[in-house]
Amino acid sequence: MSYSAPLKEMLFVLQDVAGVDDVASIPGFEDYGYDTAAAVLEESAKFCNEVVAPLNWDGDQQPSSLKDGVVTTTPGFKEAFKQFGEAGWQGVIHPTEFGGQGFPKVIATACSEMLHAANMSFALCPMLTDGAIEAMLTAASDELKQLYIPKMVSGEWTGTMNLTEPQAGSDLAAVRTRAEPQGDGTYKVFGTKIFITYGEHDMAENIIHLVLARCPGAPEGVKGISLFVVPKFLVNADGSLGERNDAHCVSIEHKLGIKASPTAVLQFGDHGGAIGYLVGEENRGLEYMFIMMNAARFAVGMQGIAIADRAYQKAVQYAKDRTQSKDLAGSEGPVAIIHHPDVKRMLMTMRAYTEGARAMAYVAAAASDQAHFSPDESVRQSNLALYEYLVPIVKGFSTEMSVDVASLGVQVHGGMGFIEETGAAQFYRDARILPIYEGTTAIQANDLIGRKTYRDGGKVAKQIAQLIQATEAELAKSHTPAAQAMLKHLSAARVSFESVVDYVVANFKSDTKNVFAGSVAYLRLAGLLVSGWQMARALIVAEQKLNDDSEFFSAKIATARFYAEYLLSQVPGAAASVLEGGAAVNSLSAEQF
Amino acid sequence: MSYSAPLKEMLFVLQDVAGVDDVASIPGFEDYGYDTAAAVLEESAKFCNEVVAPLNWDGDQQPSSLKDGVVTTTPGFKEAFKQFGEAGWQGVIHPTEFGGQGFPKVIATACSEMLHAANMSFALCPMLTDGAIEAMLTAASDELKQLYIPKMVSGEWTGTMNLTEPQAGSDLAAVRTRAEPQGDGTYKVFGTKIFITYGEHDMAENIIHLVLARCPGAPEGVKGISLFVVPKFLVNADGSLGERNDAHCVSIEHKLGIKASPTAVLQFGDHGGAIGYLVGEENRGLEYMFIMMNAARFAVGMQGIAIADRAYQKAVQYAKDRTQSKDLAGSEGPVAIIHHPDVKRMLMTMRAYTEGARAMAYVAAAASDQAHFSPDESVRQSNLALYEYLVPIVKGFSTEMSVDVASLGVQVHGGMGFIEETGAAQFYRDARILPIYEGTTAIQANDLIGRKTYRDGGKVAKQIAQLIQATEAELAKSHTPAAQAMLKHLSAARVSFESVVDYVVANFKSDTKNVFAGSVAYLRLAGLLVSGWQMARALIVAEQKLNDDSEFFSAKIATARFYAEYLLSQVPGAAASVLEGGAAVNSLSAEQF
Repeated sequence: MSYSAPLKEMLFVLQDVAGVDDVASIPGFEDYGYDTAAAVLEESAKFCNEVVAPLNWDGDQQPSSLKDGVVTTTPGFKEAFKQFGEAGWQGVIHPTEFGGQGFPKVIATACSEMLHAANMSFALCPMLTDGAIEAMLTAASDELKQLYIPKMVSGEWTGTMNLTEPQAGSDLAAVRTRAEPQGDGTYKVFGTKIFITYGEHDMAENIIHLVLARCPGAPEGVKGISLFVVPKFLVNADGSLGERNDAHCVSIEHKLGIKASPTAVLQFGDHGGAIGYLVGEENRGLEYMFIMMNAARFAVGMQGIAIADRAYQKAVQYAKDRTQSKDLAGSEGPVAIIHHPDVKRMLMTMRAYTEGARAMAYVAAAASDQAHFSPDESVRQSNLALYEYLVPIVKGFSTEMSVDVASLGVQVHGGMGFIEETGAAQFYRDARILPIYEGTTAIQANDLIGRKTYRDGGKVAKQIAQLIQATEAELAKSHTPAAQAMLKHLSAARVSFESVVDYVVANFKSDTKNVFAGSVAYLRLAGLLVSGWQMARALIVAEQKLNDDSEFFSAKIATARFYAEYLLSQVPGAAASVLEGGAAVNSLSAEQF
Repeated sequence: MSYSAPLKEMLFVLQDVAGVDDVASIPGFEDYGYDTAAAVLEESAKFCNEVVAPLNWDGDQQPSSLKDGVVTTTPGFKEAFKQFGEAGWQGVIHPTEFGGQGFPKVIATACSEMLHAANMSFALCPMLTDGAIEAMLTAASDELKQLYIPKMVSGEWTGTMNLTEPQAGSDLAAVRTRAEPQGDGTYKVFGTKIFITYGEHDMAENIIHLVLARCPGAPEGVKGISLFVVPKFLVNADGSLGERNDAHCVSIEHKLGIKASPTAVLQFGDHGGAIGYLVGEENRGLEYMFIMMNAARFAVGMQGIAIADRAYQKAVQYAKDRTQSKDLAGSEGPVAIIHHPDVKRMLMTMRAYTEGARAMAYVAAAASDQAHFSPDESVRQSNLALYEYLVPIVKGFSTEMSVDVASLGVQVHGGMGFIEETGAAQFYRDARILPIYEGTTAIQANDLIGRKTYRDGGKVAKQIAQLIQATEAELAKSHTPAAQAMLKHLSAARVSFESVVDYVVANFKSDTKNVFAGSVAYLRLAGLLVSGWQMARALIVAEQKLNDDSEFFSAKIATARFYAEYLLSQVPGAAASVLEGGAAVNSLSAEQF
């Protein structure tokens, strides 16, 4: 059940694909170049491998449990989270003025990948806390920030996001939770929230709930939603804990996976009203939430990459250990199954997906750093547009592929994969939540097709296509079979992508339902393409550096080639689905299903 | 959690795609035409929907349990199995001389689909019994047949298949269980078998284990394996039960899914030796097993289709019931999510896969009937070749797609899909065993690429391609958008398929490992093509009969078109993987993973 963070691969991607040293050229990030990344990742790996990863299986076997409104987490989680906070890991990405370490996102992303790979159920607690911190940084008053954020950054308190209600899943317009102003600047919050990750637990002294609710007289729909801080325990002016607030966990879900992570139903205001504090202005809650959601969606994409890598590592280990059947090329007796071509095909698929999605995500993280901190306005703008385009893809593509990768992980184990004690099945169960929460794949695809493609007339998408063409020109200079294979499939995929973008822009208004019918296929092919493009860039570097470390770089080259021939080769077919398939998708009436 | 067998669809496929009336023209099957099929399917549906389906969720929640060597199955299973046997369902396909009903496989297949859809864990018990009966019919002495088969056909006793051992999963050459002749015609069997489905349970009076073992002095490898009947209770000459045999369940597995189905570790001979009876001749066990395995592999393929349909039905129900978000075309308030294009896209994917795979399987079943019972030698031969080619595809393709379909079923449910009580997750867990047991997908693909494609120089595969071309010619006569879309993608897919077959035949010997690297991609594209071909044939009939039942046939046409644009469109890309991807798959050394 062990996990070993792939440090060499991560550092390669940071340096040669995502450009960590470019990020370090931004004023304020001078100390966060490659060497710092290497040192931090090594420390992070140590903690994740040794402290967090061993608790992953325990969490599945001894999930969080609820008794009398109190959630007890898996034995060991509380202690590990204390260590996590004390070592400063909760603060990696947060501003130094609140006690954080102020790292760029590109480095923090690698740390977050490790934590999720080590133990996704555990890592959800800091992930949600990150989201709550981000929301407060975005819009909360200085008073709220000073009172809450330092203790969240230190890991003493944790945070939650309270969006979903029983009648309102992905549709936040339907939120009914209400907040009544008390005349003293505070509000009383009443309502029920479901699917609240770490909504109740015993790993921290206090839990800071960020809650979407409506104020009296607020407009209907999403424009009447406000954001509130509702702490589990009220906080005195000196930061000490006061009374228990009227926010209670009434049940936790019995789930397919991530069982150690308590998914709470929270009842606000059953005993007179939960005291809440408005974040920013009334009726702008969704706007603040969206800023935070970008970060959260990116983080869930990282979970996909993380669990894919964990599943891959486990499958590789099994394939090396398990001997069965002779080698096709002939052998004395049975060989380790890793020598059988279809086992290699499965492992290569897992590996190619994971490496491609990782490179895409780290590139997106670097773009986010440039977007937010570059001194150059035009650099900020172009990177923001790139990052915004990539977020739904990082989320949608990486999580969908993680389900397939975890499923292949089970398959590599054969019959043993179906036995729970083997552990491969846990990843298959855990991964299944990823394409659902923090916006389903369909929600990501809506975002991609509407706000990110149609709204700018396909401009950003076409700019990406141009950048890919430049990579194609680089590839054309190499005459190796790998570079040529990549060139062929990257070019065909890019052309298909451009035709899809044109189609979306041209038909979005006139043929809306048919365009939306292809939204997930578009997201998938964009994910295949952009990840494949990063694999192409990695291949070019790997060919140049081959002699430095031939074992590592020849594997990178082969993986990139596999990516081209097995994954990029799927893009033209997916494009046909988008371009032609709308009518068939929408043909049947509800009654005909 | 309800299931409703799709009778109209099944009967359409039987009549207009698989040609049940052609089967009924075979002497001996005169009474088994369409009308009989309709009557039997209706009865079967009633039993499956009302008696078996309601126990499916119970089986997941209250799985089989082991105490002191005795397995207690889920409450209700024993009674349901008794009803099943008494109503004659165990005997549907078996010969009338042993108390069966002698139905052709094409009709029995539809019954079996219903049973698996209703409750896969339950249906495994009769499925394994079918396998054991088949093995004994193939090779057992008349005495063994008379003593055992009638009680298995009646459902009084059940059967098992004992192949796998701890050190020998897919590789039967490694079987170590031994059988010592006692000089009186009986043998004593010693060894451990694992993964034995219904290897121990309380649903029948006796369990008839079919066991692979080696006799003293047998050749090494698969040529030294013999097949034995080892009953749980010895059987007296008059058919009454005698002493308990030395075959004991020592543990059952804790599995990801199909929890109601006990997966036993059986210990033979720990107390002096389990009495066994040789089936057929010594050292020919694998040969007999292979005959039975064809039937069992086909049956597992049907399980894939069955669970896919069940998952589809559940997702449709949820999508009709759940209201959320406004319609893209504008609506007063939230609408049922089935009106959202991506929900339709998911449901259409599930539906298209299921209908395509079902049509392929029923066609294969009809070919099996012709292969075994046609009075015309050349008809028998050509149908046998077709059936043999299709078995690994029905098994491999239908089970792989069932995992994807069950996963989509979870996705349609959004967050509720991840909550176990919703029930969608059970199908996702249950389906995961299907690409593994009864020969993994890789094993099926090896069979397809070696015995079924290379060995005859691609002859059967090319004959199928010719038949597809004939269907293309039919399609060309229709100028509807659906027929034209189908023609375009079917034709492209068929051309890709032919190039893959040529490649396999040309390179099988010279470049074995690279050819095998593409074996699963070949299996998948062959499955996509052959299923798509049946959808094309269905489309042609549907266009002709449109006015008879426009709701049903227009849905069939739209589903066929969707199949072309979303599934057949994947074939050329998959072909590129086979043709080009071998080197990349095999590049990495074990150490580089």
